[in-house]
Amino acid sequence: MKTILLKRQLFICVLLFSTCFSLFAQDIVYTDATNLNLIGKANSIPHYYHRVDTAKYNDMPLNVKKLFTNSAGLAITFKTNSNIITARWSTVSSKTGSNMTAIANKGLDLYIKRDGKWIFAGVGRPTENFTTAKIVENMQDGEKECLLYLPLYDEVKNLEIGVAKGSIIESLESPFRKKVVIYGSSILQGASACRPGMAYPARMARKTGVNFINLGLSGNGRMEASVTNMIADIEAEAYILDCAPNPSPEEITQRTGYLVNTIRKHHPKAPIVMIQSVVRESGNFDMKVKERVAAQNRNFKIEFEKLKSAGVDDLYYIEGDLLGSDHEGTTDGIHPNDIGFDRMLNIIEPIVIDILNKYGI
Amino acid sequence: MKTILLKRQLFICVLLFSTCFSLFAQDIVYTDATNLNLIGKANSIPHYYHRVDTAKYNDMPLNVKKLFTNSAGLAITFKTNSNIITARWSTVSSKTGSNMTAIANKGLDLYIKRDGKWIFAGVGRPTENFTTAKIVENMQDGEKECLLYLPLYDEVKNLEIGVAKGSIIESLESPFRKKVVIYGSSILQGASACRPGMAYPARMARKTGVNFINLGLSGNGRMEASVTNMIADIEAEAYILDCAPNPSPEEITQRTGYLVNTIRKHHPKAPIVMIQSVVRESGNFDMKVKERVAAQNRNFKIEFEKLKSAGVDDLYYIEGDLLGSDHEGTTDGIHPNDIGFDRMLNIIEPIVIDILNKYGI
Repeated sequence: MKTILLKRQLFICVLLFSTCFSLFAQDIVYTDATNLNLIGKANSIPHYYHRVDTAKYNDMPLNVKKLFTNSAGLAITFKTNSNIITARWSTVSSKTGSNMTAIANKGLDLYIKRDGKWIFAGVGRPTENFTTAKIVENMQDGEKECLLYLPLYDEVKNLEIGVAKGSIIESLESPFRKKVVIYGSSILQGASACRPGMAYPARMARKTGVNFINLGLSGNGRMEASVTNMIADIEAEAYILDCAPNPSPEEITQRTGYLVNTIRKHHPKAPIVMIQSVVRESGNFDMKVKERVAAQNRNFKIEFEKLKSAGVDDLYYIEGDLLGSDHEGTTDGIHPNDIGFDRMLNIIEPIVIDILNKYGI
Repeated sequence: MKTILLKRQLFICVLLFSTCFSLFAQDIVYTDATNLNLIGKANSIPHYYHRVDTAKYNDMPLNVKKLFTNSAGLAITFKTNSNIITARWSTVSSKTGSNMTAIANKGLDLYIKRDGKWIFAGVGRPTENFTTAKIVENMQDGEKECLLYLPLYDEVKNLEIGVAKGSIIESLESPFRKKVVIYGSSILQGASACRPGMAYPARMARKTGVNFINLGLSGNGRMEASVTNMIADIEAEAYILDCAPNPSPEEITQRTGYLVNTIRKHHPKAPIVMIQSVVRESGNFDMKVKERVAAQNRNFKIEFEKLKSAGVDDLYYIEGDLLGSDHEGTTDGIHPNDIGFDRMLNIIEPIVIDILNKYGI
C-alpha cells in the first residue's frame, strides 16, 4: 500500500516537473529581482517591496501602514539580451476590486526603451497569488533596457525574472532623476488604471524623466498627523498633494495647514503643489456627492489662500475640469479610467513640469 | 436542544430580514426588467437576455453559441421619477478575465438623459453571481429617462430594477433609430472597456443616435459559414465587419469573400463596412505577433480589393492608426483600454456616420 502511494506521489511529481518545464518553448533561467534595481520607493527601507517603512510611526493608522506595503509605483530596472522575458511572482491576498483589472491589482507591466522612449512590451497576467507567466517573447536580438512595474494594489512577497538560458540579465540604473513625492488617494495609487504602468505618476515619470514617488492610499490620504510627519521625513525635491478626495470637508479645513506647514518646516525651499479633487461623476445625479466634492475643493482652496496669506511661499494650486466635460472619464463614478487619467495629465503635467523647471528640478 | 436550535435559526432569519431591508435608506420596490424595454438584440428572440437565438444554426460552434448568450450591447430603457435606482440581478458563472473589471464583466452601467444627452449616472458593482446594489441615489425630483447597460461578458439570468416606494417606473421606447449590425471579436464585445456602456458600439449609439448591434465574440468572429448565414439573416440597414483580429491570415483569405457575398445577396443595397484589425501592442517587441497582424490586415485588404473588382458595390474599408501612436492604448497588448477605444472611435465614427448618411440611414 505504502509503495503504491509512493509511486503515485512520484508520478505526480514527475508530471508537475514536466509541466513546469513545458510552460515555455525555451529553457528559462530565473534571477531574484532583489539582485536587480528597485525604483519608486520613498526611501531606503528594510522590506524590499514596500513603499515606505512605517515602523517608527506608531500613531499611523494600521490600514495606512498596510497600504504602504502595496507596491504601487515600484518598478524593477534591468537589461538583458534575451529574446524572451518571463516572471514568477507571489502576492499576498488582496481581492481585485470590481472597478479594477487583476493585471492592475496584482500583475506586472513591462516597458522596453526604444529610440529613447519607454514603449509598452507586455503584461504579466496574474493567476491568484502565485503566478508564472510569459511577459514577452520572439524579440529581436540585442540588448534591451527594461522597466517592469509591480502590482498597484497588492503586496509582492517574491519576484523572479526569467530570461532565456545563456543570455545575460543585469541591473540597470534608474532612468529617472530627482525625487518628487505625490501624496493622495486611491486615484493616485492607480484605481482604475488598466495596468500598473498606467497609474498617473508612472506615466508622468516615463514622459518627463522625473522620479515621481507614488504615495497613493486607497480610501485614505486623509492627512493624519502621523502620515504628515512621515511625508515630511522624506527627502525630496518637491511635494505634490493630491489628497483632497477622501478627507471630509471639515478634515480638509483642520488638517491642510498642518500638512503644508510641516513639509515647509522640514524643506524650506521645496515647491509644494496642491491639486484639487477630480469631480466624482457619480455626482452627476447624486446631489449629496456633488455637494461634498464641491465642499472639499472649496475648503482645500480656502486653506491654500490662507497659507499664501500667512506667507507660505513656493506653494501652488492646480484646478480645472481634470476629467474633461463628457462625464465618461471614470470607471465607477469615482476613479478615473484611462481616458480620465489622460485628461487629468494633460492639465496637471505641464503645470507640474513648469514649476519643477522654475526650481531647476 | 431542538428549541434552542430553532430559536437560533429564527434569530438568524430576523437578522437577515433586517439586513435586507436596511440595505438602502428608503423602501425599494422592484420591477422585473422583462416588463420594461430591452434594446440591442439582433432580432426578436425567445430567451430574453441573449443577443441572438442560435437554435436553428446547427453547425455554429458551441462556444460561439455560448458567447451569444452574453448580454454585450443589451440595455434596458425605462423612465422613473424615483430619486434612487437600485438593481437585483444574477449572472451565470463567467470568471472575470485578468484584463477586465468585474463591472464590465458582470456589472450594470446606468445613463440618464439630460439636455438631450446621455450622461453617466452610476454603476451596479457585482458581487459574485447574485447582487443587490444601489446604482444612484439622492437625485432631484422629476422624471428621468434611463438607459441601463447589461454585463458585457456574462449571461444575465434575472434582472429587477428597484425604485423608491410610491414612485413610478415604466417602459421607455428605444432612443436609438435604425439598425446597424457590427460583427467582430472580443474587442467589439467590449474587452477591455472599463464598464458596459464604454464598449465602442454603445458609445457610438449614445453619440449618434443610431442603433448599433454588438455581435462581438470573445476569441472568435472567425467568419465561419454558419455564423455568416446567421448574420445575413438579420434584417439591418448596414453591416460593419470588425472581424479581422482573430481568424488566421489564411482563414481571412478563405472566408471574407463568402461573408461579404452572402450579406450582399440577402441585402442587395445595404452598405458593408470592413474595418482592419487594430494593431496588437504586444507586437511592439514580439515579432511574430507583429507579423501576424500585418498579414491579417494585408489579406483582409486584398479580399476587399478583390470584392470591389468583382463588382461588389457599397463596400467600404476603414484603416489607420486606430489606437494612436504612443503604444498606450491597450490593457494587455491586445485589447484596447478606454484611451484606445477613444482613439479608435475618433477615426471610425465619422467615417461610419458619413457612409450611413450617404444611404439616408
